[in-house]
Amino acid sequence: MEYRKIKDELQDDHGVASDIESVKGKSHTVASSNIAMATLGVGSGERVNWKRKGVVTCALTILTSSQAILIVWSKRAGKYEYSVTTANFLVETLKCALSFLALTRIWKNEGVTDDNRLSTTYDEVKVFPIPAALYLFKNLLQYYIFAYVDAPGYQILKNLNIISTGVLYRIILKKKLSEIQWAGFILLCCGCTTAQLNSNSDRVLQTSLPGWIMAIVMALLSGFAGVYTEAIIKKRPSRNINVQNFWLYVFGMAFNAIAIVIQDFDAVANKGFFHGYSFITVLMILNHALSGIAVSMVMKYADNIVKVYSTSVAMLLTAVVSVFLFNFHLSLAFFLGSTVVSVSVYLHSAGKLR
Amino acid sequence: MEYRKIKDELQDDHGVASDIESVKGKSHTVASSNIAMATLGVGSGERVNWKRKGVVTCALTILTSSQAILIVWSKRAGKYEYSVTTANFLVETLKCALSFLALTRIWKNEGVTDDNRLSTTYDEVKVFPIPAALYLFKNLLQYYIFAYVDAPGYQILKNLNIISTGVLYRIILKKKLSEIQWAGFILLCCGCTTAQLNSNSDRVLQTSLPGWIMAIVMALLSGFAGVYTEAIIKKRPSRNINVQNFWLYVFGMAFNAIAIVIQDFDAVANKGFFHGYSFITVLMILNHALSGIAVSMVMKYADNIVKVYSTSVAMLLTAVVSVFLFNFHLSLAFFLGSTVVSVSVYLHSAGKLR
Repeated sequence: MEYRKIKDELQDDHGVASDIESVKGKSHTVASSNIAMATLGVGSGERVNWKRKGVVTCALTILTSSQAILIVWSKRAGKYEYSVTTANFLVETLKCALSFLALTRIWKNEGVTDDNRLSTTYDEVKVFPIPAALYLFKNLLQYYIFAYVDAPGYQILKNLNIISTGVLYRIILKKKLSEIQWAGFILLCCGCTTAQLNSNSDRVLQTSLPGWIMAIVMALLSGFAGVYTEAIIKKRPSRNINVQNFWLYVFGMAFNAIAIVIQDFDAVANKGFFHGYSFITVLMILNHALSGIAVSMVMKYADNIVKVYSTSVAMLLTAVVSVFLFNFHLSLAFFLGSTVVSVSVYLHSAGKLR
Repeated sequence: MEYRKIKDELQDDHGVASDIESVKGKSHTVASSNIAMATLGVGSGERVNWKRKGVVTCALTILTSSQAILIVWSKRAGKYEYSVTTANFLVETLKCALSFLALTRIWKNEGVTDDNRLSTTYDEVKVFPIPAALYLFKNLLQYYIFAYVDAPGYQILKNLNIISTGVLYRIILKKKLSEIQWAGFILLCCGCTTAQLNSNSDRVLQTSLPGWIMAIVMALLSGFAGVYTEAIIKKRPSRNINVQNFWLYVFGMAFNAIAIVIQDFDAVANKGFFHGYSFITVLMILNHALSGIAVSMVMKYADNIVKVYSTSVAMLLTAVVSVFLFNFHLSLAFFLGSTVVSVSVYLHSAGKLR
């Protein structure tokens, strides 16, 4: 639960914004996503895009997967009692610093241009706080949903994110998925849930109406924040991603500072900012920062659909790696779910609109 | 288990045969199967075929589904101790009688023609005993597999039939499925298995090598018998189905008589042929006879793929109906499996080769 909390807040959290209406037109020109790119014949002109998309997608998958492994490791090492909000704040700060570092190198090599200058306009920056604000709201809601569902039930319900992302991607970005790709997306949701099934999963069916409503609202908030971030980043395709990230993360820092005040003020004031931090906490913050940047890159060079597939496949990879690292036993449900997810990945590729 | 045994032996059991080589060519002319026919635009010439296919498919689904409900009902009413082999023999006899009855009506209306005459040639009839022999062998194997897997594990492993039917359909009948349809078929297998998951299902993963081999051999025998029956029936498209059924069922009677002698001779000799029969046994025999005939009709007017989809959907229907009839609780796994099966049905239709 600690882990999931930090994961939720950080992994997709990069407060940014933009005028969505003006993106709708442009989004069609962006090559539609395809996770199984290697199986397709692509024109040589698109080969660079395709390569970049592949690299960022693989990076996201590996980072997300190692994230979960770090969590299991830290759980085995004993409870960790640091404040999640301070860790989130540090992740945003680290991402911000890394983006700035990347920018200084770019300035040295290419000089300062209109596309890579750090200064921004009100028009560019005004929508940047919106995703960060959405995540803050979602994370606050998360404290209340546990009155209605237990932690494993919440893990199951979180798969609603997949569906909400697909629906909002269609509605807000006006990007079309083919019917086969929609079938694949429904299967992705079913497959991920199946892979997580255990003997207590049925309890989630007894969730009361307020619990369901909160779960759906949270899925919509998370999906909307993701899709909105993509809209912001893609609104200015030629703008350097590191500048966009920098501003995203500045607002991420600001909203996480608010979260510290709301949720952990007493703990931080009494025990100190770094109370409970350990070596593994540092590793986790580093990993979350890198995967946060990978998410932004996937938004820039691919899209939310690729992001969802990438993190879902990472979930399965984690389980497989855990067999070797931690002697995990894989369940029949896991094999079935993984097969369904694999078929879903294939369908996303095979069902590509021409 | 009793139920499954009778189901296995009867539902697909209609010993027939034919020269498969000569069918290979013809099979291409038979309109490829499509369970979601209603969603397709079909030429008016094909409308009659399409309607007939729909009717026999629905009949098979409803009969298979009510079969399972009868079983649950009979289990609730208490153990039934009749001999399964004698019941199988009676089912074959009843199917034979019903086919003959249908034929007499046809002769009265249309007169006796080359296509509906009962007399046959050695060339036509020589392959008819093969499927019945395959089922006999499979049912004998079934007694031994329980040394390696428990009954719920066997239920899970039986879903291998889906894959074996698809593979043998492709190899023996040389009918092509599109890649999307193959994806659908894999999902059908995963979805059915997921819907059946319970807290003990993981034990099936501990099945030893001989257990797996027997399960695979049984799946191949059952798949081969089904595909071979389709080959026999479709070899002579103009031949009346009731004549083909009559001969199929004659050999079914013969091989089930052998099964009585091998498996239940002592019980029948000591307690009598009808020992343990009740009203519900009679209903079950009636139901199995009708669904057996429906299977033959599906083989004639559709194919094995439609049959597999039809009986899989029936399995899900049974569970839903049981909620109302027997206060069953549906598991989360059931909902996930059902969704995967539904998507699979859609893919079979959407992925149709043109």
